[in-house]
Amino acid sequence: MIDIESYIKARAAAVNAALPRFIKGLKHADPRLAEAMAYSLSAGGKRLRPLLMGASYEIFGGKAGDILPAACALEMVHTYSLVHDDLPAMDDDDLRRGRPTSHRVYGEALAILAGDALLTDAFTLLLSSRYPRRVRPAGLLAAARVLGERAGARGMVSGQAADLEAEGFLKGRATPARRRAGLKLLSYIHLHKTADLITAAVEMGALLAGAPARDFAALSSFGRDIGLCFQVADDILDVVGDKGKLGKSGSDARNQKLTYASLLGVEEARRRARALMRRALPELARVRGAAGPKAALAGIAEFVYRRDK
Amino acid sequence: MIDIESYIKARAAAVNAALPRFIKGLKHADPRLAEAMAYSLSAGGKRLRPLLMGASYEIFGGKAGDILPAACALEMVHTYSLVHDDLPAMDDDDLRRGRPTSHRVYGEALAILAGDALLTDAFTLLLSSRYPRRVRPAGLLAAARVLGERAGARGMVSGQAADLEAEGFLKGRATPARRRAGLKLLSYIHLHKTADLITAAVEMGALLAGAPARDFAALSSFGRDIGLCFQVADDILDVVGDKGKLGKSGSDARNQKLTYASLLGVEEARRRARALMRRALPELARVRGAAGPKAALAGIAEFVYRRDK
Repeated sequence: MIDIESYIKARAAAVNAALPRFIKGLKHADPRLAEAMAYSLSAGGKRLRPLLMGASYEIFGGKAGDILPAACALEMVHTYSLVHDDLPAMDDDDLRRGRPTSHRVYGEALAILAGDALLTDAFTLLLSSRYPRRVRPAGLLAAARVLGERAGARGMVSGQAADLEAEGFLKGRATPARRRAGLKLLSYIHLHKTADLITAAVEMGALLAGAPARDFAALSSFGRDIGLCFQVADDILDVVGDKGKLGKSGSDARNQKLTYASLLGVEEARRRARALMRRALPELARVRGAAGPKAALAGIAEFVYRRDK
Repeated sequence: MIDIESYIKARAAAVNAALPRFIKGLKHADPRLAEAMAYSLSAGGKRLRPLLMGASYEIFGGKAGDILPAACALEMVHTYSLVHDDLPAMDDDDLRRGRPTSHRVYGEALAILAGDALLTDAFTLLLSSRYPRRVRPAGLLAAARVLGERAGARGMVSGQAADLEAEGFLKGRATPARRRAGLKLLSYIHLHKTADLITAAVEMGALLAGAPARDFAALSSFGRDIGLCFQVADDILDVVGDKGKLGKSGSDARNQKLTYASLLGVEEARRRARALMRRALPELARVRGAAGPKAALAGIAEFVYRRDK
């Protein structure tokens, strides 16, 4: 048995050390832009996506350190999405992880640009880094394709757009037909807004390792299900969580966001999260490879699912 | 002699036909998001960057059609930068190419997301497309790296950030020291805000063709110089151009932007544009390869430099 909290702490520390090195390497960048990028990258967080990518890669024999640039690149994509999501035109959040959001510190224009740069430079970092020989160019290309597809209009950005359009959905009377439409919309939002980037994490790890197609598919299903589970858990926390621990201002209720908690109640949302986790673990078990990293993946998933912040 | 206007028209038509096909291929995308992406991509424009990429590629023996997805990807990056640049928090423009800007039609939130998706999907399109065998995976990887570096915090986004910070620079008294500082800042802005993506166009064409390093370097210098020349010409047009022909609202003067025209006067700006073009053409002449595409590159550059809209 691994001590999952220590494991997460140690692995996240490696990511936290690598991210500022990338920003420091940005010669000739506008200094305030680089500062705004570093500010959002240094806000902490669980570094969940890099951790998942590293563990997924290790199932097939490598060491997570081999693909640290790719793991940081994915964290940059996640960070850009938070910076843009917090903007006044979007969720209009003042706090993120207990600190003022980027646009509160640097102004709206620079926050937009810092997000743009984090997204673009994620691809630069992913594609321009040196990897050990076991990471083949074909695997790198495949991982970059997955990142583009899961993060773009086929993925995360469509989830964000649908989320915006769903604002105020609950204002009308909650007829059964309206509830059904809400649930359908909500599963689209969760799949793309959250699960796609979690799925990308485990998929990219597998592709960089050159995993067989069958194992890739099983990991992909596992990624989708834990991603959906995390979003349901997050929705529940937004309702019942301790705002101090969460370090954010609970804008979901204010913006009348569609969530499982608002649509089905907290108990039913909890039941759904449990069901997703129960489906995810056997998918992971089907993957052929090293037992330690598989246990770590399961441990990370359980840890996030049970978290209270 | 090629008829450059007919050449540009025919080549731009191929790009205009390919861009909507990409958007139509976006299965499962949020429909309004896809619509906003298509809206900005269909606004026309000269398709200068795809044209430059195609001609640069053809110098080394291929046909521009081979790399149409890469050319469209670069146009998507350019388009995203315009959508974000027009936002209320940035230049706050109502018109672009004679049509209402994205945020005027779709709202600010969706315009931000449409820009994000255009940027992300540019990488998807570039990396996921099938190319003929003469485009090697190593060339594709190198082209994607160049796109990331020229478009991100080392390139275009830093130019945008510096441009923002330069607003109101001319409010103070124009002492000689202040003018010198202004010129230095301005050359940074032009280099990154405009020239970097033009440079990327010719560089990506050369890399996709597997061009020798010496020819790549000459083309890169040519790209930088014509890019700088275009921006000076654009600054002049913003002052003396016919707003009807330009199809935009001339926000530079309103926002007190630093431009060569405002800093040095229109005549001196014209002299600088001429000097840049005179430096660029011998750089192109040094490139070893097919004469027709080289003449086309020179023709495109001269055409843009002499344009009145």
